[in-house]
Amino acid sequence: MTPYEALENSFRDISHLLHVSAVLYWDEATMMPLGGGSARANAMAALAGILHERITAPEIGDLLDQARSSADDLGVWERANLHQMERTWSQNTALPHELVKAIQLAATTCEQTWRACRPSEDWTTVLPKLESLFKLQREVAEYMGEQQGLAPYDALLDSYEEGLRANFVDETFADLKAFLPGFLEKVLERQAQKPPLPLPGPFPLNQQEQLGLKLVQTLGFDFEHGRLDVSHHPFCGGVPDDTRITTRYTEDDFLHALMGSLHETGHALYQQGLPAQWREQPVGEALGMAIHESQSLLMEMQVCRGRSFLNYAAGAVREAFGASADDPVWSGENLHRHYTRVERGYIRVDADEVTYPLHIILRYEIEKQLFSGQLELRDLPDAWDEGMKSLLGLSTAGNLKDGVMQDVHWFGGLFGYFPSYTLGAITAAQLFATARREIDGLSDSIERGDFTPLVGWLRSHVHGQGRLMNADVLVRNVTGEPLTTAAFKSHLQARYLPD
Amino acid sequence: MTPYEALENSFRDISHLLHVSAVLYWDEATMMPLGGGSARANAMAALAGILHERITAPEIGDLLDQARSSADDLGVWERANLHQMERTWSQNTALPHELVKAIQLAATTCEQTWRACRPSEDWTTVLPKLESLFKLQREVAEYMGEQQGLAPYDALLDSYEEGLRANFVDETFADLKAFLPGFLEKVLERQAQKPPLPLPGPFPLNQQEQLGLKLVQTLGFDFEHGRLDVSHHPFCGGVPDDTRITTRYTEDDFLHALMGSLHETGHALYQQGLPAQWREQPVGEALGMAIHESQSLLMEMQVCRGRSFLNYAAGAVREAFGASADDPVWSGENLHRHYTRVERGYIRVDADEVTYPLHIILRYEIEKQLFSGQLELRDLPDAWDEGMKSLLGLSTAGNLKDGVMQDVHWFGGLFGYFPSYTLGAITAAQLFATARREIDGLSDSIERGDFTPLVGWLRSHVHGQGRLMNADVLVRNVTGEPLTTAAFKSHLQARYLPD
Repeated sequence: MTPYEALENSFRDISHLLHVSAVLYWDEATMMPLGGGSARANAMAALAGILHERITAPEIGDLLDQARSSADDLGVWERANLHQMERTWSQNTALPHELVKAIQLAATTCEQTWRACRPSEDWTTVLPKLESLFKLQREVAEYMGEQQGLAPYDALLDSYEEGLRANFVDETFADLKAFLPGFLEKVLERQAQKPPLPLPGPFPLNQQEQLGLKLVQTLGFDFEHGRLDVSHHPFCGGVPDDTRITTRYTEDDFLHALMGSLHETGHALYQQGLPAQWREQPVGEALGMAIHESQSLLMEMQVCRGRSFLNYAAGAVREAFGASADDPVWSGENLHRHYTRVERGYIRVDADEVTYPLHIILRYEIEKQLFSGQLELRDLPDAWDEGMKSLLGLSTAGNLKDGVMQDVHWFGGLFGYFPSYTLGAITAAQLFATARREIDGLSDSIERGDFTPLVGWLRSHVHGQGRLMNADVLVRNVTGEPLTTAAFKSHLQARYLPD
Repeated sequence: MTPYEALENSFRDISHLLHVSAVLYWDEATMMPLGGGSARANAMAALAGILHERITAPEIGDLLDQARSSADDLGVWERANLHQMERTWSQNTALPHELVKAIQLAATTCEQTWRACRPSEDWTTVLPKLESLFKLQREVAEYMGEQQGLAPYDALLDSYEEGLRANFVDETFADLKAFLPGFLEKVLERQAQKPPLPLPGPFPLNQQEQLGLKLVQTLGFDFEHGRLDVSHHPFCGGVPDDTRITTRYTEDDFLHALMGSLHETGHALYQQGLPAQWREQPVGEALGMAIHESQSLLMEMQVCRGRSFLNYAAGAVREAFGASADDPVWSGENLHRHYTRVERGYIRVDADEVTYPLHIILRYEIEKQLFSGQLELRDLPDAWDEGMKSLLGLSTAGNLKDGVMQDVHWFGGLFGYFPSYTLGAITAAQLFATARREIDGLSDSIERGDFTPLVGWLRSHVHGQGRLMNADVLVRNVTGEPLTTAAFKSHLQARYLPD
């Protein structure tokens, strides 16, 4: 057995433990009764500890040294795999073992506390947990940064998307910050003329569920290898062979739950489409979070909120709720008005694609201040209010639930993650513009509910590439250009301010 | 830190991994989509491998040696804990590491194959998987037997219930085999005079579910620390802080699903009632499978199929299905006739308590023949048919689904487990006879739906004892006598052939 082959064996074992971890995480978020939280936090920390032990085993370091010296004999996928093994190894060896277990425990505990505290806006109870977690998170960032020669916050960005740096995010976000507020004004003015017709509820949950299952399947989700369930915060988890997506339903509105399912289906299609022959190796994993978000946002924003899809979906919606095709309330056109409605709002996950980047910029700017020491966690509510007023003209003073306590990310230890959403949105626009050029009759097939051409294109250009190259190279290869905001802005212009 | 304290730390870590394992198992049986099976089998084998590594770590052996020499300084719980640690250690060190991983993989694979093959009675596909699994299982039994100085089959029995030996099972089963067939004849004759009135369905699943949740809660199940779901084969899994029970519903009958839930609740109450201060230590685990079954069967057979409970439950049943109290079909008396109906049947899990031991004796006799080499797995269908004809007068020739393919146990690698059910049934009878003597007004409280006195008694006498002593000692302590069939036979006599 060559050193490289021995590494493949070790990382195959590690992939099995990542599978275990994915199931635990999904169960915790969807199934676990409240009282199970504390024991579960210990179980998850124990597993994180073992994973860390396995990944940082000295044998792996030795094998990497040996494999590196004969890397020229390897094929292109194997070389990329070796690179990903090295990346995983160095990210993990950067961290002391006790810190890894401590941060897993702190993250699970803080996230569980957040879940319990959010409904009653109990900031005082969750703040100390968040402070402990952030302290550990900062240590992690410092250790990782030191090892890679990066600033701490850059090290976090890099952990979610290889090669991503704050200066690229700064430039991109500055561009959007210059463009969006003025654009938003014009869109709001124009949309005031043509409000959507209200959809008459209530919408029974089981009918919503049937509708969701049907359209998720239309997009290409493979239910032989996955499930759709309910959770507090929609997400896509599990593993390629067993992909778990979630949404949440309310009786008075079906639009959010449905679009939530379709968004997560974009993630799921990526996960289910990862290269089958590299399923248990690092090179076979998803590329990074910006690309992951690009796949959900391509489905949600580029496709499912577009006229072609909504003309198709309107039929399924009417069938689900027993509505008449003659009633303009239930037309694709009216669904389109709902699904492209732009509004200044408090909640990121409910935001339209025009205001969404402003929510992200708020969080990004706050995160950078937290890491630079300019801002303390206890001052978060005020900083949030200030930022919301300046970016969106809305105050969240005294409204923590819809303010700083709205998102799970920080309470789950995901600092440095938020930029992925907006980078994902602009990547989605650039990829979809290319797909439209390259796939004949794409809009027609979508309007027929046939996703085979689009998903086939994504499989070969994105999903099936795994981690063969980094995101920057992938985008250049597929679209012929580096990532910019151009396609995103064109898309917004065409959809919201057409001539 | 003393060696004993260091051991507590190690076993606490191990308990966290057992938690992980319990969640994986539950998810596999209730939630996992079919296509996830193969990847899951690998994940579960990896986890089993790690658990085995941890439990057999040389440091643990050293610490056990040191702790043993100062065991006199320990309290009674600590000494019992140390004994359980030693037992776990020697059971695990008996087995080569590769065998542990191989048998976990073979068990998951064989069980998944069984699930897929049972509906179509595809014995040919599942047989080779069962053969591979049995071969490994026999190796396990031989290794364990060698280490403990036991015959291989005794070693398996002992692994499910410390101290249990085939000669005790032989005697007990011989006694039942002498008693039951004649008793059965008389019961069938008597019941032919008074058949139950048919219950008119269908019974919508959500109404059944509501009814189940209500009565499960009445028994004392803590939903803050548990869930009730649906699975192919009802079971109780999870951990004390997060106990998962399952059942399965059909529209044309609610009796089975309901009693299935109540049976599993008996297991769950045991699990949730294990000593809280020993939750993460071996001494805090459930005693063994016969005691576990005694707790489910005490609830199911002694209590929930009895008149007192059914008079109470009839109200909840009528409410669930909107039935009238004046209609004798919906009376407690008619429910009692249904729930005490004795019949010669094919299916163990559907069997009444009179014929149930005969199903177990069939399996026990076959298992012993498999382990002694008198019977080959490929001849199982014939041996099954022979046994059924001789014990129950029914042929299962050409009916594999309701014959040898009906139970998950062998296909999941659980050889030596079946005797637990019948030992559990006679233990339940003996314990409940004691409870009735010791708790004033027990029947009345049950008839009011008040389970506090009974569950409180079980908590202090059984659940809260964890593994402080073995089953034999526990039964003697609580009931004042060794385990015999006497109380079981009296119970059957009183219920089925009263004067």
